[in-house]
Amino acid sequence: MEKLNWLTANQAAQGIREGLFSSEDLVQSCIDQIRAREPDVLAWAFFDAEHALTQARRADEWRAAGNPLGLLHGVPVGIKDIIDTGDMPTEDGTPLHSGRNPWHDAKVVDLLRTAGAVIMGKTVTTELAALAPGKTRNPHNPEHTPGGSSSGSAAAVAAGMVPLALGTQTNGSLIRPAAYCGVFGFKPSRGLISRQGILRQSDRLDQPGGFARCIGDLALLGEVLSAYDPDEPGMSPRSNVPMLRVCNEESPMPPKLALIKTPWWPQLEADTQEGFGELVEHLSKHVGEFVLPDSAAAVLDWHKIVMEADMAANYQTEFERGADKLSNSLREQIERGRNVKAVDYLQALARIPVVTEALDEIFDRYDAILTPAVAGAAPHGLESTGNPMFCTLWTFCGMPTLSLPLLQAGTGLPVGVQLVGRVGDDARLLRTARWLVDVIK
Amino acid sequence: MEKLNWLTANQAAQGIREGLFSSEDLVQSCIDQIRAREPDVLAWAFFDAEHALTQARRADEWRAAGNPLGLLHGVPVGIKDIIDTGDMPTEDGTPLHSGRNPWHDAKVVDLLRTAGAVIMGKTVTTELAALAPGKTRNPHNPEHTPGGSSSGSAAAVAAGMVPLALGTQTNGSLIRPAAYCGVFGFKPSRGLISRQGILRQSDRLDQPGGFARCIGDLALLGEVLSAYDPDEPGMSPRSNVPMLRVCNEESPMPPKLALIKTPWWPQLEADTQEGFGELVEHLSKHVGEFVLPDSAAAVLDWHKIVMEADMAANYQTEFERGADKLSNSLREQIERGRNVKAVDYLQALARIPVVTEALDEIFDRYDAILTPAVAGAAPHGLESTGNPMFCTLWTFCGMPTLSLPLLQAGTGLPVGVQLVGRVGDDARLLRTARWLVDVIK
Repeated sequence: MEKLNWLTANQAAQGIREGLFSSEDLVQSCIDQIRAREPDVLAWAFFDAEHALTQARRADEWRAAGNPLGLLHGVPVGIKDIIDTGDMPTEDGTPLHSGRNPWHDAKVVDLLRTAGAVIMGKTVTTELAALAPGKTRNPHNPEHTPGGSSSGSAAAVAAGMVPLALGTQTNGSLIRPAAYCGVFGFKPSRGLISRQGILRQSDRLDQPGGFARCIGDLALLGEVLSAYDPDEPGMSPRSNVPMLRVCNEESPMPPKLALIKTPWWPQLEADTQEGFGELVEHLSKHVGEFVLPDSAAAVLDWHKIVMEADMAANYQTEFERGADKLSNSLREQIERGRNVKAVDYLQALARIPVVTEALDEIFDRYDAILTPAVAGAAPHGLESTGNPMFCTLWTFCGMPTLSLPLLQAGTGLPVGVQLVGRVGDDARLLRTARWLVDVIK
Repeated sequence: MEKLNWLTANQAAQGIREGLFSSEDLVQSCIDQIRAREPDVLAWAFFDAEHALTQARRADEWRAAGNPLGLLHGVPVGIKDIIDTGDMPTEDGTPLHSGRNPWHDAKVVDLLRTAGAVIMGKTVTTELAALAPGKTRNPHNPEHTPGGSSSGSAAAVAAGMVPLALGTQTNGSLIRPAAYCGVFGFKPSRGLISRQGILRQSDRLDQPGGFARCIGDLALLGEVLSAYDPDEPGMSPRSNVPMLRVCNEESPMPPKLALIKTPWWPQLEADTQEGFGELVEHLSKHVGEFVLPDSAAAVLDWHKIVMEADMAANYQTEFERGADKLSNSLREQIERGRNVKAVDYLQALARIPVVTEALDEIFDRYDAILTPAVAGAAPHGLESTGNPMFCTLWTFCGMPTLSLPLLQAGTGLPVGVQLVGRVGDDARLLRTARWLVDVIK
């Protein structure tokens, strides 16, 4: 019964299904790990061991009664604390929402429960999923940031507390903490996953996703979460995406990767540049370089205009009634957002399809884009969650992206590599990533 | 072969189908009527009789070859000149777009052609579908405005030049000209009809529709145009809406109408108030009054914020490169739009679902809302197209509405009555309207 907590979600689900161990065994092992590591890592905003065990025992009873089992039956999952849970508080990382107890689960939580998952607890988010850090520390070195805004989810998975956790990304909030914490992070295509019941920061940019310790687990999670939701505006009726099957298939041809250094390449730290270079060399016969036009740099401005104006609109109540309880950085973001003109906002929005279409031609010749996930390893100190600039372009376009923990900084801290796919081709991106991880091994 | 031009579209399609007359006969009759009335009415921005006859002859050959016939086989339709046609210019009512020849048909034109329709020509629009009038005059009295922005389409149908014409509405651009010209106007639910290839004024408010001389023809037109378009953002796959069948069904119970006087009731002209009162009295056992909260008056402001900011963004090129070629009213609208803050824009947008939901409860007890379409008959003079205020609330909410030519002003000019339905219930609204027209007769 040792080290069940380090199993992948696929292994855990299979073990429970086959009766090798119970959900209670697994959840207890995760609880033990949380007790051991939480004082250093501080990943959880809400955690009730007894409530988690109750869910696990119910899952075991369900199985014992011979019922059909969901894809995540008995597997514990951590939930970022901006995602509503009907049975636990959801406080959005701000004292302004302290004691907030939603009546309903978010759609993604509902989907996890339907798949049999144990909702383990709520993980620390930055303030309203923006820049101001929560209490979480990097599991590899508590003096370093875990990244944000999905700080607790990335740290909990990295520390072996849960095999899976949910996060969200509006700029770099999934990929950055995944890259800093050395886990696999997945930001699916915009519109693939319902956002009902999730704190709304930006209608056009918010994109839910998750963390795991292998690609196959992200495929499993993505398959469960990609269900159609009639209440999600713009989502069309369709079946769940068969990510697990496609991810495990062999590519019909060896994948080709488009190396894109991006206009922000000079800001890469020296050891990351070196490590990335070695990786590219290792993959050389699979990689071709694609150079973005200089104009791509303007995406950072367009993204900022959209995100800050949306934040000003969505956080208006918090700003008007509790501005003194907000961090300086958030107050400044909202103040800038309040001054954005509607025409500038609309013109920035109008760039999204234009830029996306310009990038689309890459995928006529390449399976995925290979690019840095972050400028380097997690910065020292807890006052900043690091810079999301290497994520912004792909989030802006709603393209699916992954962070893969393939590099290491000179300090020994992990550094993520980013793989980006065509909008809607999430399953193929996962397959390409699995191939890449196998090749690198 | 006399007076074919005055047939309804349903009668015309049936006559052609049964071989009572040819499409060429019908189109020639409409051409004769255009030649007779156009010098007074000035409904057409582009009209080429030979091109129309060529299409008609091709339709006749198609039928003679024993091919299956679409719902509008051989029937001529007028197209507002902001809707792209691949075979005719589309000049958007502004000298800035003079000589513009689109490469492709708009989706709605494509659907009409697939249904067998003859595209008769392009009808006059106001400048960029905003306030500044085109050349068209009211067919009932050339000293009066036909209303706008779909001026030529409403006038052409009223003058017997075509049985059907397409228009669009962002505020009151279908219902107002229908009401002034004494024809039936239909603005379907937001999202029901594709806008691909139509001049974009406001992404959230633009709603295509049409004009006819009876309710059944609007059902026929709506059924053809309601096809799913994968290129229209937010449209979900679905079948065409069976408007013709539903419209012709008997209501299972006598319909009930919610009389809503709206906060703008005091601005109704005296004779229209009187005529409307008589109508309500005549229908008394079917009508209950529903009072809107005073706060509903704010919708005019919210609508203005959204529409003018969208116009500023969508007409930026015209404003920056040809402001001196724009009317004063449009320049002022764009200038106001350029000063709108993104937060105010987003908050106005956020009211749409709130107001729509508040109105939705009406339809638990009533089949449709009965309300004025305009403040009175078409104003004297051609410098203004009249006031759209009685249309704004319903357009803002994306609710389906009809203008029915049921009243007359003291001057003898027609005045429309408006019937409004629940979002998505277009077919039932048409059925209720048909019942109402039959009851009034």
